[in-house]
Amino acid sequence: MYDQLKQQVYDANLALVRSGLVVLTWGNASAADRRQGVMAIKPSGVSYDTLTPSDIVVLSLKTGEVVDGKARPSSDTPTHLHLYQQFDAINGIVHTHSTYGTIFAQAQRAIPCLGTTHADHFFGEIPVTRQLTRQEVDVDYELNSGKVIVEHFRNYHLDPLNIPGILIASHAPFAWGPTPAYAVENAIVLELTAQMALASMSLAPNLQPIPQFLLDKHFLRKHGPGAYYGQPATKETR
Amino acid sequence: MYDQLKQQVYDANLALVRSGLVVLTWGNASAADRRQGVMAIKPSGVSYDTLTPSDIVVLSLKTGEVVDGKARPSSDTPTHLHLYQQFDAINGIVHTHSTYGTIFAQAQRAIPCLGTTHADHFFGEIPVTRQLTRQEVDVDYELNSGKVIVEHFRNYHLDPLNIPGILIASHAPFAWGPTPAYAVENAIVLELTAQMALASMSLAPNLQPIPQFLLDKHFLRKHGPGAYYGQPATKETR
Amino acid sequence: MYDQLKQQVYDANLALVRSGLVVLTWGNASAADRRQGVMAIKPSGVSYDTLTPSDIVVLSLKTGEVVDGKARPSSDTPTHLHLYQQFDAINGIVHTHSTYGTIFAQAQRAIPCLGTTHADHFFGEIPVTRQLTRQEVDVDYELNSGKVIVEHFRNYHLDPLNIPGILIASHAPFAWGPTPAYAVENAIVLELTAQMALASMSLAPNLQPIPQFLLDKHFLRKHGPGAYYGQPATKETR
Amino acid sequence: MYDQLKQQVYDANLALVRSGLVVLTWGNASAADRRQGVMAIKPSGVSYDTLTPSDIVVLSLKTGEVVDGKARPSSDTPTHLHLYQQFDAINGIVHTHSTYGTIFAQAQRAIPCLGTTHADHFFGEIPVTRQLTRQEVDVDYELNSGKVIVEHFRNYHLDPLNIPGILIASHAPFAWGPTPAYAVENAIVLELTAQMALASMSLAPNLQPIPQFLLDKHFLRKHGPGAYYGQPATKETR
Repeated sequence: MYDQLKQQVYDANLALVRSGLVVLTWGNASAADRRQGVMAIKPSGVSYDTLTPSDIVVLSLKTGEVVDGKARPSSDTPTHLHLYQQFDAINGIVHTHSTYGTIFAQAQRAIPCLGTTHADHFFGEIPVTRQLTRQEVDVDYELNSGKVIVEHFRNYHLDPLNIPGILIASHAPFAWGPTPAYAVENAIVLELTAQMALASMSLAPNLQPIPQFLLDKHFLRKHGPGAYYGQPATKETR
Repeated sequence: MYDQLKQQVYDANLALVRSGLVVLTWGNASAADRRQGVMAIKPSGVSYDTLTPSDIVVLSLKTGEVVDGKARPSSDTPTHLHLYQQFDAINGIVHTHSTYGTIFAQAQRAIPCLGTTHADHFFGEIPVTRQLTRQEVDVDYELNSGKVIVEHFRNYHLDPLNIPGILIASHAPFAWGPTPAYAVENAIVLELTAQMALASMSLAPNLQPIPQFLLDKHFLRKHGPGAYYGQPATKETR
Repeated sequence: MYDQLKQQVYDANLALVRSGLVVLTWGNASAADRRQGVMAIKPSGVSYDTLTPSDIVVLSLKTGEVVDGKARPSSDTPTHLHLYQQFDAINGIVHTHSTYGTIFAQAQRAIPCLGTTHADHFFGEIPVTRQLTRQEVDVDYELNSGKVIVEHFRNYHLDPLNIPGILIASHAPFAWGPTPAYAVENAIVLELTAQMALASMSLAPNLQPIPQFLLDKHFLRKHGPGAYYGQPATKETR
Repeated sequence: MYDQLKQQVYDANLALVRSGLVVLTWGNASAADRRQGVMAIKPSGVSYDTLTPSDIVVLSLKTGEVVDGKARPSSDTPTHLHLYQQFDAINGIVHTHSTYGTIFAQAQRAIPCLGTTHADHFFGEIPVTRQLTRQEVDVDYELNSGKVIVEHFRNYHLDPLNIPGILIASHAPFAWGPTPAYAVENAIVLELTAQMALASMSLAPNLQPIPQFLLDKHFLRKHGPGAYYGQPATKETR
């Protein structure tokens, strides 16, 4: 019943490891099936070496109750669930402690848009949330991690498909997309743009973000009705 | 008819991936066949995992029209085409978003010649173009990317075989050479010299470029009539 | 008689190499078997390529005398032995010269707790010992390396299971845990947190450690009676 | 006649590539056979992929004339030859443009001894030569590269077995040892200590070298009559 969804989530989790974004068990990928009203996610603390598609846990998108799978779902499940509930357009989420993304998260700095690599995938800086309060950490910590993400997008009027990721302050990145494969790709881009921004800023300390017209050009040649990058077919089948 | 050319372009694209210069689909290699009046280039947004020599697209060097191949050519094709049209001596071009080259491009800084590794392949600093204007970005962006490169070489009286690469400001490197294999090699050198220059400058903030006589010695022992590096035969057959 | 212990130590040593923490022969892992009153450790200066489980040397935990094995034990054996004698709760120790851990050790700086990656495994900063005196270096150097570690834990009232590692000033890291596998994991975490802290501090020079309530949350959700991370079974069988 | 020597040189060259110290063809390893009065070295500009032991070129240690092999020897041969002629105790030399060693060479900075990793292999800082003059570069450049190395060792009364490597200013490292295998090992150590020193100095800008008693302890426990690191047999058979 959920075999295809579980396979997708399994593939996305392994893609994280292959891409070097995940060390030990610090990372997880999930997918939502809006039609069936469920999400699927990696089980908690299970080694990627022994993970199989049948280990993937399926939960109700509405209630968060497990509907398929024997293992305990990732401890970050409440964060994923809240994002799926609040961001209708996304169907894949990945969380990693990828090195350079985490470096910016720890420094509590957004990743500025300093070049076209960034602009091709994120339509502006990759933001960082505010710190959670003691109260938010003590009770329902993982749910509140989702809430500060949504709060940031609401406060700054951001579209989750235009800015498909964020850094949680003192923690690490979340990235997402219309599919789990796009979520993984955005997590890779986030990591690389963080690495390059760190060094570009050290080389040119007063560096400003790229002009809006260059950002528009790059993001919009890949996204939306005027896109002309890639092959016509691949955009649909991905 | 174009099988050899397509194979060359295929090989150069895979060499970019093997060398770690390309992540996701951010990169492309092309080659020109001056006798047949064509250039060949990677199709746009196609994954390197599934790329085959027959996917390579062939275009007229004069008009840019596709003469062979079913896929849409790389979105950067107008840049490559303009460079082949303006720089007669080059027959291979590669474009990457390699990490350290892009770090300098984003910082809008040339890569200074700080050592013999650089001097063996680039006869002086690796320049950075000016920023494109809003007008140049909005209309014919990729063609204009080629034009600012050529403008830089004209303004500073540079020879494309002596300085076989450049950084586009806020974007990333282009490198080239007399063959696609040399273009790949120059892209590798550009990346490594960028990495080393970044750290040498942080270690010795007031570091000056190497003296002209050392630059002359290294570049000219590998290039031109007095070259004595390598085996006599390999210089021809490469 | 000691086959299982020797296999564990062999596995932990190879895991260090696989994790990229060890270059050349700079590293060693050991394990204690409290019931049998012994510890086992890698032989000195033996290449990891040719190491076999039967090369592992077994010594008395009480006297340090070799009770099994023909090779000379690691020159760092007196450090390991002293730690097992003084820290009852640990049964695995690893020593590496991993790049970023050693960078902090050389700089004689503790690794501050700047994020949740760190907080999940170390309940506070990863400390650095004082420098050894000339006298301590000249006589019984390796034993004294163990003694300055224990001295630091005593002086600062630290629990070795809460802070499962330390940097020896001007030298390199030691990490440990309830099993050799946990010791390896803690050495990996130490290395990554060092890498990330170095860059976070360069990005935000006045960065402060994370608040205590966030440290509590992360460390305690993985350790102790209230832990809810991972699968119930894996915590026991690891 | 020279088969064993050529195999040794072949093995050392491949070890450089495997260790990540050599990119493209920027590196070479050689060995001397004092009894036969010859040295053997990699041919110039030949790819490591296609290199075979029979490609290795053998030259007279006295005259530098080729006595075996059809290819042109490495363009750095005069540097190697001069070092073998002036430093009696060394029988293996490697030259690389390894990233961090070259970063220090470009910055014209010695690598200070900041920790025991360094002290285990180099009995003090890894020096950098003076710049070559225009005259020295224009005529007999590679021979003069050897001469500035020897000049530095003479001026500072250094023993080539205690300091088994140096950086040529604005160029890159040379390392050596009693055998080619030790030369490769010293080149690996030089690269790692450069990487770690760069970052330790950025973390602690006024960092001083380790005290002499700690340097003595580490270098002498591995070298000379009182050495107690490693297995007794391996020191001889290596």
